[in-house]
Amino acid sequence: MNAPVDPHFAARCRESFGRQKAMTLIGARLSAVEPGATEITLPYREDLTQQKGFVHGGIIGMIADTACGYAAFSLMPAGCSLVTVEYKINILAPARGSLLARGEVVKAGRSLTVARAEVYAQDGKHIASMQQTLMMLPDTPDTPQ
Amino acid sequence: MNAPVDPHFAARCRESFGRQKAMTLIGARLSAVEPGATEITLPYREDLTQQKGFVHGGIIGMIADTACGYAAFSLMPAGCSLVTVEYKINILAPARGSLLARGEVVKAGRSLTVARAEVYAQDGKHIASMQQTLMMLPDTPDTPQ
Amino acid sequence: MNAPVDPHFAARCRESFGRQKAMTLIGARLSAVEPGATEITLPYREDLTQQKGFVHGGIIGMIADTACGYAAFSLMPAGCSLVTVEYKINILAPARGSLLARGEVVKAGRSLTVARAEVYAQDGKHIASMQQTLMMLPDTPDTPQ
Amino acid sequence: MNAPVDPHFAARCRESFGRQKAMTLIGARLSAVEPGATEITLPYREDLTQQKGFVHGGIIGMIADTACGYAAFSLMPAGCSLVTVEYKINILAPARGSLLARGEVVKAGRSLTVARAEVYAQDGKHIASMQQTLMMLPDTPDTPQ
Repeated sequence: MNAPVDPHFAARCRESFGRQKAMTLIGARLSAVEPGATEITLPYREDLTQQKGFVHGGIIGMIADTACGYAAFSLMPAGCSLVTVEYKINILAPARGSLLARGEVVKAGRSLTVARAEVYAQDGKHIASMQQTLMMLPDTPDTPQ
Repeated sequence: MNAPVDPHFAARCRESFGRQKAMTLIGARLSAVEPGATEITLPYREDLTQQKGFVHGGIIGMIADTACGYAAFSLMPAGCSLVTVEYKINILAPARGSLLARGEVVKAGRSLTVARAEVYAQDGKHIASMQQTLMMLPDTPDTPQ
Repeated sequence: MNAPVDPHFAARCRESFGRQKAMTLIGARLSAVEPGATEITLPYREDLTQQKGFVHGGIIGMIADTACGYAAFSLMPAGCSLVTVEYKINILAPARGSLLARGEVVKAGRSLTVARAEVYAQDGKHIASMQQTLMMLPDTPDTPQ
Repeated sequence: MNAPVDPHFAARCRESFGRQKAMTLIGARLSAVEPGATEITLPYREDLTQQKGFVHGGIIGMIADTACGYAAFSLMPAGCSLVTVEYKINILAPARGSLLARGEVVKAGRSLTVARAEVYAQDGKHIASMQQTLMMLPDTPDTPQ
């Protein structure tokens, strides 16, 4: 449905994701990139948990946030950058194992993009739903200045 | 304004926070607990950043989420537990240094609590604003079952 | 996917909607009720607009809110009532004509339900996306006390 | 704290609000405009209620949305226009009487503004909390085109 402006969108997303040190810290992997859609995989680790032994809600937010971000980034032209304006996440169920976040663009506007992410457990259980707003910064490098 | 039901609320919050392995992973510290209000401090580390060298938006969400959670937890009776229903966060400015998240209860209901958090940089710059909903689980231990 | 607990769910939703005087005020109609899903139709009227002649964002919120609410209500047992905990809506495009809101349950929990609504213009244009949390009040009449 | 760019901000807000036919429909009044802050008053009317006789959550959203909008608009230059990007609202308590919505700018950026609104009942009861994102459209008339 969404046609990418940049034919090298997938390599651009993977390269940018590779520079996200926070994703390395938690062990998340960008496991799929399509035009306007992504998948992020997060293997379970005990050091990602909260006080009751479930994966921390903020960690769930991190992978959903990033899944939305690269879904949006995949549809943008090369040479631009992206900022997260805001996101909202509902935690639907506690999670004790590995997670998969699927991000998808709802609407790619000239300046603003709205995206959603769903987070699932390995058994298919629906863990979280996010709705996010992003803003494109034209002609801004996606690297530390 | 908010009177704690449990006189040992501060110790209970600190003990629970100490079991949040995800907070240890990112180096966050519960630096203050008052009835219905908390502060979480996050020293800057390069491994918390996204592709442009700013603190990852999901990390900002993590400390704001946790600040709201313990603000709510501080007003609850001993012997109960808490789940995050949902949160919404606006990222107001990119952050490149240490962060302080201040959580505060807006309304503590019988079952649901609404809380807010503000995240600030060391120079006082306003980095993010969160609004969150939490649900109390009565007679449920705040520990792994 | 969602099996209704109450076989008379549709009549119960329509009867409840009929008591929403605010829906009568704006001219909205509950045009479809399925288990866990609804449609609300809003014919265009000039008195629903904001300062630029578009349908007011709050009016768009009203029909999306109500579409989510009855999607959730359709799956609940008879004799219970429902409160909106919170909702978040992205306005994707300005709207100048009649609108259709489609509500759908994402997850129906014991106490909390998460639902979504999409609002469309007559030409199929995507106008808004909502994500909402609702809470069931067991054994509480859905009528003025 | 917020200095208005346009000295005639109050007249500009009142004139724009006067063109919001949806506000006339529900009987809302812009009762105060300060730089970056507004108050909207909504007298109780039975035709604003939902099925249980409380003011409809969507109506509460309408006045909070509008309070945020004019708080943002008050800080903008003359000759620009404003769109609501998204909002999130928690309904804290049911409302059966007249309402007051107070909007306030959290951060006025170059393009995006974040604002909040609180809705109160006449007895001071806290009814709702909103967090909203708005986008300025430079050199765009605030009137039907």
